[in-house]
Amino acid sequence: MQPLPGFRDFLPDDCAFRNAIFARWREVCRSYGFVEWEGPVLEPTKLYKKKSGPEIVAQLFNFTDKGDREVALRPELTPTLARVVAAHEREFRKPLKWFCIPQCFRYEKQQRGRLREHFQLNCDLIGDASAAADVEIVALAIDLLRAFGFTATDFVVRLSDREFWTDLLRRENVPEARWSELLQVIDKSEREPREKTAERLGPLAEPVFKVLDGGGRSEKLETLLRGLELRGLAGFVQIDLSIVRGLAYYTGVVFELFDRAGELRAIAGGGRYDNLVSQLSDAAVSLPAVGFAMGDVVLGELIKEKPEISSRLAEAVNRQSALDVYLVVAKEERRQEAMRHLQQLRDAGWRVDYPLEAARVGKQFQTAEAMGARITLLYGDEWPAVKMKKLATREEVLVPNDELLARAGAALSS
Amino acid sequence: MQPLPGFRDFLPDDCAFRNAIFARWREVCRSYGFVEWEGPVLEPTKLYKKKSGPEIVAQLFNFTDKGDREVALRPELTPTLARVVAAHEREFRKPLKWFCIPQCFRYEKQQRGRLREHFQLNCDLIGDASAAADVEIVALAIDLLRAFGFTATDFVVRLSDREFWTDLLRRENVPEARWSELLQVIDKSEREPREKTAERLGPLAEPVFKVLDGGGRSEKLETLLRGLELRGLAGFVQIDLSIVRGLAYYTGVVFELFDRAGELRAIAGGGRYDNLVSQLSDAAVSLPAVGFAMGDVVLGELIKEKPEISSRLAEAVNRQSALDVYLVVAKEERRQEAMRHLQQLRDAGWRVDYPLEAARVGKQFQTAEAMGARITLLYGDEWPAVKMKKLATREEVLVPNDELLARAGAALSS
Repeated sequence: MQPLPGFRDFLPDDCAFRNAIFARWREVCRSYGFVEWEGPVLEPTKLYKKKSGPEIVAQLFNFTDKGDREVALRPELTPTLARVVAAHEREFRKPLKWFCIPQCFRYEKQQRGRLREHFQLNCDLIGDASAAADVEIVALAIDLLRAFGFTATDFVVRLSDREFWTDLLRRENVPEARWSELLQVIDKSEREPREKTAERLGPLAEPVFKVLDGGGRSEKLETLLRGLELRGLAGFVQIDLSIVRGLAYYTGVVFELFDRAGELRAIAGGGRYDNLVSQLSDAAVSLPAVGFAMGDVVLGELIKEKPEISSRLAEAVNRQSALDVYLVVAKEERRQEAMRHLQQLRDAGWRVDYPLEAARVGKQFQTAEAMGARITLLYGDEWPAVKMKKLATREEVLVPNDELLARAGAALSS
Repeated sequence: MQPLPGFRDFLPDDCAFRNAIFARWREVCRSYGFVEWEGPVLEPTKLYKKKSGPEIVAQLFNFTDKGDREVALRPELTPTLARVVAAHEREFRKPLKWFCIPQCFRYEKQQRGRLREHFQLNCDLIGDASAAADVEIVALAIDLLRAFGFTATDFVVRLSDREFWTDLLRRENVPEARWSELLQVIDKSEREPREKTAERLGPLAEPVFKVLDGGGRSEKLETLLRGLELRGLAGFVQIDLSIVRGLAYYTGVVFELFDRAGELRAIAGGGRYDNLVSQLSDAAVSLPAVGFAMGDVVLGELIKEKPEISSRLAEAVNRQSALDVYLVVAKEERRQEAMRHLQQLRDAGWRVDYPLEAARVGKQFQTAEAMGARITLLYGDEWPAVKMKKLATREEVLVPNDELLARAGAALSS
């Protein structure tokens, strides 16, 4: 029996790697004053049909539940966020700075960096329409990668503005009903032959290509860039108007983070969605918002490609599971005393393991080493003393049984 | 728009409460030498149809995916664990001590302590059939609650043995095909009128009631109790043969944790399932196993009922979101310098926030207080010095701008 295609089993090492990523994400988000929240994995399908756009709806894991409700596994978090904020915004000071690490689901073809589920850090700043909020959000996206040790030679933020394009479409007298389709064509232009894009754009091809070839200027984006410059982060960013983003609800600044080598899918992406909360609100709550999502799969690949970054993370991974103490039961007659100490050491917060059944002393020491124990305590002929050994230095010392807790604690704290 | 019935939105305070429970669970599991793993939320439906028993299958969130596969949101973790262990057991030293905090789903009537989703700590010890493994697992369940501050006056482990009952059924010459149905009747006997149970048991009523009224003795359970006694945990346990557990795959010792007041549903439950791994293995891997699950909903209610335990947890909750530093921009001309320090302080790992836009100084201090900041740094007329204030003591000091990082760090570390 296998997991379903596109779904992962996280064996302990994989889980520790994932947890180390989550822990770093949480640290950086909190350093920005963001607080964690969480929404349901399952939502009414209409939440996505209304808001996410046709690409996402085609890839939903959706079904009818036993109460005849149309429901879907969340493909993304933003519609849930807008729903929750619309319902509860009065309870919070503005702006809201919220993050979440949901698992999201899309039924799509598996390929490198894309499974049918992934975990996705979402960071959103809600209730502020200023460029300062955009700067804060882009800076956070950058610092999330810097925290792993990535530099400006590893990745770049490509920064764009969807409003720049809607302004152009308006100037060219394109009816609003066609905007969404044309934005999709521009979004895909980088990955398609120019003739094909030209055909789809028709008379718009000339003004659009002029911009894509570097002829567009956006004061809004230059302001944003200056804000990042003040924080010393301008080197991580380039203005690139070819970025439009696939989701239907973006209204202004949009951006994507890519590896500089250009080998992977986007590491993260986001933008401004000033109308989504009001669209999901009964009470016509209007709250401008800006946010982004960063998945664990592409980031995980990028980490694994860089040995120095993997090995830094490996320390955090090892800290999760390494043992403090292993109890070596050399004489079964002493097992009772070992069990008493076991409970006391664990109660004191130490990580302690021991052999469930009688085993050779040599094998017990092997297990202690394999589990990363820092000290062993041996229960044998020395009783009422216990032989304490530091595995790193091989130092051994006899400890009287009534001093054991204090002496082991001291050895582990030093 | 609301979440689906039985599903929760976790606003930041709810999420912090949940995270504080998870953090304590992880700590205690690691103190027992358990390592974390994780399986998929979605699994082939047949995994549960085969293994979990009819009650669970009737409550599945199941559907046909876009590739025509019968799939289900996991109602429990154990079948996934058995699948993963059967496939990977050669990679690990025995016994495996694994824990996981999956979200699980059941379509059932909502009631106190029961939603349609919950998070559920699962702890399993695999590859050891001894009573020592049972002791270790029951002790872990107890210590998980002790870690929150609960005592033997708050909860009790009711300990039973399914084998005791199958032995009795065998002695009474009951055909094996009827065992599962009769075990269900015994499991439910506590919650139903005795006449109804008697009717269902038929000629078995007399021997069964004799046991339920205290006439049964189990040497296996008495050994288990002695093992817990050595650890000082016997006061948390009572032998109670009326516990049988609803799941189909249990084979030996079973147990449930209840609040002593008897007001809530079971806080946790588990037992031995020695045949499940081999049933899910192609290569006929046979691994005895014992484990349990503890949900977040009932435990959350129990915590909220005890003010001294809630308030201990509240400290952990506050630590998650409290800010270190709030930057007060008293003069907008100084915002640039504030932004430079912002980045430096965050890079140093501190949690720092600031006003995105111009605001009155008094309002900025209010925000700093509300966000739990420990110090404020004020950028105003004093520049090139910054006014640093400890909010707890109201002490203020002027700090030259080039010493700021070191001085703020010292103030925060003291």
